[in-house]
Amino acid sequence: MLDESAKGVFAIAATPFAEDGSLDLDSTDRMVEFYLDCGVAGLTILGIMGEAHKLAPEESVAFTKRVMASVDDKVPVIVGVSSPAFNSMADLTKQVMDLGAAGVMIAPMGGLNTDEKIEGYFHSVCNALGSTPIVLQDYPPTTGVWFSTPLLTRLFADLPSLKMLKHEDWPGLRKITQFRAAEAAGAHRRVSVLIGNGGIFLPLELARGVDGAMTGFAFPEMLVQVCDMFAAGEREDAEDLFDAYLPLMRYEQQIGIGLAIRKETLRRRGVISTAVTRAPGPALDRDDQAELSGLLSRLDRALASQTRDGAFYSPVNKTD
Amino acid sequence: MLDESAKGVFAIAATPFAEDGSLDLDSTDRMVEFYLDCGVAGLTILGIMGEAHKLAPEESVAFTKRVMASVDDKVPVIVGVSSPAFNSMADLTKQVMDLGAAGVMIAPMGGLNTDEKIEGYFHSVCNALGSTPIVLQDYPPTTGVWFSTPLLTRLFADLPSLKMLKHEDWPGLRKITQFRAAEAAGAHRRVSVLIGNGGIFLPLELARGVDGAMTGFAFPEMLVQVCDMFAAGEREDAEDLFDAYLPLMRYEQQIGIGLAIRKETLRRRGVISTAVTRAPGPALDRDDQAELSGLLSRLDRALASQTRDGAFYSPVNKTD
Amino acid sequence: MLDESAKGVFAIAATPFAEDGSLDLDSTDRMVEFYLDCGVAGLTILGIMGEAHKLAPEESVAFTKRVMASVDDKVPVIVGVSSPAFNSMADLTKQVMDLGAAGVMIAPMGGLNTDEKIEGYFHSVCNALGSTPIVLQDYPPTTGVWFSTPLLTRLFADLPSLKMLKHEDWPGLRKITQFRAAEAAGAHRRVSVLIGNGGIFLPLELARGVDGAMTGFAFPEMLVQVCDMFAAGEREDAEDLFDAYLPLMRYEQQIGIGLAIRKETLRRRGVISTAVTRAPGPALDRDDQAELSGLLSRLDRALASQTRDGAFYSPVNKTD
Amino acid sequence: MLDESAKGVFAIAATPFAEDGSLDLDSTDRMVEFYLDCGVAGLTILGIMGEAHKLAPEESVAFTKRVMASVDDKVPVIVGVSSPAFNSMADLTKQVMDLGAAGVMIAPMGGLNTDEKIEGYFHSVCNALGSTPIVLQDYPPTTGVWFSTPLLTRLFADLPSLKMLKHEDWPGLRKITQFRAAEAAGAHRRVSVLIGNGGIFLPLELARGVDGAMTGFAFPEMLVQVCDMFAAGEREDAEDLFDAYLPLMRYEQQIGIGLAIRKETLRRRGVISTAVTRAPGPALDRDDQAELSGLLSRLDRALASQTRDGAFYSPVNKTD
Repeated sequence: MLDESAKGVFAIAATPFAEDGSLDLDSTDRMVEFYLDCGVAGLTILGIMGEAHKLAPEESVAFTKRVMASVDDKVPVIVGVSSPAFNSMADLTKQVMDLGAAGVMIAPMGGLNTDEKIEGYFHSVCNALGSTPIVLQDYPPTTGVWFSTPLLTRLFADLPSLKMLKHEDWPGLRKITQFRAAEAAGAHRRVSVLIGNGGIFLPLELARGVDGAMTGFAFPEMLVQVCDMFAAGEREDAEDLFDAYLPLMRYEQQIGIGLAIRKETLRRRGVISTAVTRAPGPALDRDDQAELSGLLSRLDRALASQTRDGAFYSPVNKTD
Repeated sequence: MLDESAKGVFAIAATPFAEDGSLDLDSTDRMVEFYLDCGVAGLTILGIMGEAHKLAPEESVAFTKRVMASVDDKVPVIVGVSSPAFNSMADLTKQVMDLGAAGVMIAPMGGLNTDEKIEGYFHSVCNALGSTPIVLQDYPPTTGVWFSTPLLTRLFADLPSLKMLKHEDWPGLRKITQFRAAEAAGAHRRVSVLIGNGGIFLPLELARGVDGAMTGFAFPEMLVQVCDMFAAGEREDAEDLFDAYLPLMRYEQQIGIGLAIRKETLRRRGVISTAVTRAPGPALDRDDQAELSGLLSRLDRALASQTRDGAFYSPVNKTD
Repeated sequence: MLDESAKGVFAIAATPFAEDGSLDLDSTDRMVEFYLDCGVAGLTILGIMGEAHKLAPEESVAFTKRVMASVDDKVPVIVGVSSPAFNSMADLTKQVMDLGAAGVMIAPMGGLNTDEKIEGYFHSVCNALGSTPIVLQDYPPTTGVWFSTPLLTRLFADLPSLKMLKHEDWPGLRKITQFRAAEAAGAHRRVSVLIGNGGIFLPLELARGVDGAMTGFAFPEMLVQVCDMFAAGEREDAEDLFDAYLPLMRYEQQIGIGLAIRKETLRRRGVISTAVTRAPGPALDRDDQAELSGLLSRLDRALASQTRDGAFYSPVNKTD
Repeated sequence: MLDESAKGVFAIAATPFAEDGSLDLDSTDRMVEFYLDCGVAGLTILGIMGEAHKLAPEESVAFTKRVMASVDDKVPVIVGVSSPAFNSMADLTKQVMDLGAAGVMIAPMGGLNTDEKIEGYFHSVCNALGSTPIVLQDYPPTTGVWFSTPLLTRLFADLPSLKMLKHEDWPGLRKITQFRAAEAAGAHRRVSVLIGNGGIFLPLELARGVDGAMTGFAFPEMLVQVCDMFAAGEREDAEDLFDAYLPLMRYEQQIGIGLAIRKETLRRRGVISTAVTRAPGPALDRDDQAELSGLLSRLDRALASQTRDGAFYSPVNKTD
């Protein structure tokens, strides 16, 4: 079960589809294996990147079941259960927890535009979900719901089932410092903070005190290495490695089409069979494909120029 | 099947729940009977007011089935099938059309922020749904998607399965005039236009050329009478009747709590057994209840003071 | 100077322009006289309705000076000084207070999306403006800034220069009750609460405990009478009078074009010389003009049918 | 005068303030000299980065006058004149054009939520400003106004005074390709396209056919070199140089605080005397300062490791 000590990289998993848009469970197995090979500390499925809102409830359960079987208890699995209705949220939570999930992730519904409303919402959520461990997703660019640090402090102080903050406010560096300071001052117990936003500020966020990353960047092995190097005190080396990937990571920072870029990158790496997203969804055209190829070639060269002990690049081969 | 000649009042139906939040199918029967007694020309179910996004897919189908059985082909039934995924939309559409629905209503998903994106979206929707008759819901205050008149004209000219415009832009009076003018000029075929926004501008909109109303106001018999009187040329009388209800109608114009007001009014009128909404949802407190009682009493007195031939007030009794 | 005991109707004044868009100071005199004849308790100038953001700083000062001269200390005048920059806000505040204003009104700048940010903002504002009496404008539909009741309570408890809440949250009835309850419980001193939103919920809001209205409805004499009748305990009569105006008041509830409706109504009543708004701004077309005429005729008839002692209708004549 | 052939880098200039918040005209001279030394093709003042909305009209004119004197006709100067009122926009335009500006830049006001409204707005703007050359700023993340490619094509086809598109839609790479394709197909004359968004996609955008950048990144000399190298066909070298700055450029991509980062970087480089922004505005705290120092040190090392002919780094010294 997920607890406040979680750290490292939780990969946000895509949901693989066949050409006809149906669930691709064989790719699902391969994808899980890939993430485990990358050294992730956990997996998060059915998030926004997982196109959860485009799955029928029975598909969500079938996909979760297959992931749990492939993971085989090697790492904790968190399942996104955000929903406009508490009963649907509670139903899916019960099903995935019964299947062996370590916890659930919840982004607030839209329209919660004051501290008071957000606070009431999460009290109700925690009440509805009992003792299930919960990741609170603070992602205002997508949800339109804004959390101040004092509000986060109150929530984590009052609600013991909140175990982790997924931090993807933007800008949000100062917020991390403030959150950790409140924690240090005893305002709430120490909880896990993993960052999102595609990982684009990861080294700065690690320096500010977060425990790792939860994001869908298509090279999770780099995120793992960066977290490990930071933990080992090799901060400058970690940033060197990170910066080699930054041009590609920036390229993923394109709302909408970013998902297509990630799926295509995973496809090229042999992880999933198609880059299909469910309609209405993004797809890369010929120009985008060429652009991505160029960025991946540049990444190869940048990594080759980093002469160090040991390989920084995953053995999983990228293929066009 | 719904076509471009539809007119009159299509009641947007609530979805009745029991105290425990489960579907209340007995109230559903009573509600259908109530709407038919009110003289509505059609019913619309599973809209925003119907809390459609809080129903599991199988609940949506079960509710539709019960409504169709109660309606027994007396009036056409339109079913809301808006969804972030085209496959879910198509699945639900097929199921409800097989059950005898006359057509479906679609509000665009969020994020369609240019004419080009909206146009592409509805072309895809119509392609996905084949020949199913479609009501296009133009409701920017809730969807955040804005339609210009030229865009509506192009959509109705190009997509023959769009049969009706549900107009609830605000302000939108001039838009009705422009839309009808484009139609008169031959820019697109004549289509049905029903208005929403709780009906609050209905007389002005009828004067501007709409065919009726599609809204969930808890006294649909008044809407029916107003439309009939307008059709009969009794415009001032129609407005007199309408204005008597306006204080209550304005009271419903409270986003969020408006749904609770409507359900409670239907409950007081004996139409449904509870005013329960699914969590997280609005509920009336003691002050709200007293306020509603006051407004309903004032409505009674206002109607009593209108000395005319024939009763303007429905035989369905309102009870506290 | 404005203090916490303010009550009654503060008319939000238009800014009259000549046909060429220049300030029309003769109409300004006439308008002030009109408002005073209507029995208003105060005036508010340079608000959103006053097109303040379309005036050059020297025009704002010139207009204020003329209003102050016409008012001649008969009622307090509040001046809108909202600005993205504190120095501009402080400069204009100093100038208008030197001219004799009773206080200033401030709507928060956009982007204040947490309680913490809003709180910091108003602390800074109060610090920048010293002891100037301030009206806090809580108007989320326009500002996008949302105040919870606990936040309002903290602000009014901590900041003595905040004297009045202009309440125009929507829905907002329950908020009034909560705010007054916090006050009754001693959470903050008793302050003045005037409502906005075009006055459309005024009777309900008076019943919930507000002190009056601050709005630009073109028949302020009715608002004055309704407040007076409520104060005298004649609540049902007050609502009867109010409801006669409600169809027109609802017609004004059209964002954008509402300003043109108000200016045209004032023009027809002989108050200002033109209905010109500064570009880009709304204007009525022939259909709108006819619609307004119809509503004003219906208002005349509705008032004529109210057979009471004394006239409910202002002696100021409406002319087409 | 600005025309459709403009290319290269137009630096968006900050507005330097003294510690007390007053205009710092000595720093203004030094800043202009710095930008010219960097090899910029033009300057843009009084944009969003220039805190234009926090300047009094007379300050805007005084600052423009000083910039024009320092530039001394060496490069064209564009002045931001966006305003909610056309008369203010026209007044400022006249004043700055009389002072020798090459053109003006206009971001649409908020609330233009359909193609039709945007099109009407720019027709009115062009009508109000006569033959003044105009840069159309397409910056939806800040303005909330979204331009489709077909709309841009119509605008540039119909309005000859629109000379340049400042492109900062996001994601926007495909839009550039579409815009240039429409141009190549003869849908509108060839116009200048400069990109914004802090320059973060510059190499990809140059490859897609833009003419340069208009942004406030604090190392404009790099932008100039990248554009020059691209023009010379040295694309991979250009990207190598660009990527060295990318970690810092990403750091600037923090809405709000980004302005403080730019001003502080310019201060450290000796360009302006203080990093002061006008209240309410962002400021760096001790942690932010240390973070910036780290990123600048890493930039130094990254540039040092690029062993090429000639210096890639500006002679202007960065100092802590």
